[in-house]
Amino acid sequence: MGAGTSEGTTRRGRPGYDQETLVRRAVEVFNRRGYDATSVGDLASELGLTKSAIYHHVPSKEHLLSLALDDALDSLEVVIDAAVRESPAMSAYESLRTAVRRSVEVLVDKLPSVTLLLRVRGNSAIELQALERRRHIDEQLAGLVRSAVAEGALRDDVSPELISRLVFGMVNSLTEWYRADGDVDVAVLADAVVSLAFDGLALPQA
Amino acid sequence: MGAGTSEGTTRRGRPGYDQETLVRRAVEVFNRRGYDATSVGDLASELGLTKSAIYHHVPSKEHLLSLALDDALDSLEVVIDAAVRESPAMSAYESLRTAVRRSVEVLVDKLPSVTLLLRVRGNSAIELQALERRRHIDEQLAGLVRSAVAEGALRDDVSPELISRLVFGMVNSLTEWYRADGDVDVAVLADAVVSLAFDGLALPQA
Repeated sequence: MGAGTSEGTTRRGRPGYDQETLVRRAVEVFNRRGYDATSVGDLASELGLTKSAIYHHVPSKEHLLSLALDDALDSLEVVIDAAVRESPAMSAYESLRTAVRRSVEVLVDKLPSVTLLLRVRGNSAIELQALERRRHIDEQLAGLVRSAVAEGALRDDVSPELISRLVFGMVNSLTEWYRADGDVDVAVLADAVVSLAFDGLALPQA
Repeated sequence: MGAGTSEGTTRRGRPGYDQETLVRRAVEVFNRRGYDATSVGDLASELGLTKSAIYHHVPSKEHLLSLALDDALDSLEVVIDAAVRESPAMSAYESLRTAVRRSVEVLVDKLPSVTLLLRVRGNSAIELQALERRRHIDEQLAGLVRSAVAEGALRDDVSPELISRLVFGMVNSLTEWYRADGDVDVAVLADAVVSLAFDGLALPQA
């Protein structure tokens, strides 16, 4: 979509918005003000655009939400699908470690859209669809945990569902405090999460 | 405050509200609709009360928020202060385990008000004050982690600040899914969190 560029050249001093930039900046506003509490008018004034400039790129506020949630969910699904597919070739335990590490990387890479995703409560068809995709991811992860327990690689005194919720609760909690411009590097963070989770989960004899 | 009782008797068929019940039910509405998005009028219609019945108990919506945040913070502070005070008598490692376990118990016991607390972003003086109290709790916990690392009881390849954030990120993530009427008992949950966190953190030789 080249409309953003032509707008940028016709309006002097006004940055050109393409759809991707618009989604990115809208997500920042949604995370700060709350999606439900932000009207297209609010969004326009926060971004220094007219409402019609926004409608030039997307038909509705819901469409912006949908693009942002897809951005987060597509990336998470790629990572989890790859880990699940790996599973016959390598142990479920190794696949699960990979899934946790890659999830941390996606969270950091897509921090604003994942933050928005984690706040979705199901207030519309788009939100319900996003929750359904999250649920499918959660089931795939719980499946990997169950397989790793069955392999004898993970402790079996905590239920696989609870392990999955606690480990990914820890991963998701990064959205509450992690800042890309802070002093924690993504590799350090991913190492810390994986070792905190698994040195607790892996049986010493495995 | 006995006003709720007299109201309960004067209005037939209408449940009597005392201040505590009002706060508890208001917190449920705030968590569902968002605090900022809920007016006193919204609250009144959700609770089947008149606005003046609400103002009979509290001077403002902010006062309800303040009571709810105090409810969560007072309980958390009791638990953390006790753990910190224990510290000379027992190891920091043991105190930290106790703090994690008790934090899980407070989260479950005060789930709605802790959920509200964790969503506070600093939009008012009351919210900023609550964030300041949270920050003090976080510092006390990070101090316990540092002491436990210094004792040689916890791994030292992850920074104490990061350990503290990840462990309490896992604890706080319970507000996202834990339901008192669900199938996970609080004792099972506290055991799972403590063993997942510490069997990863405790050095085998400690």
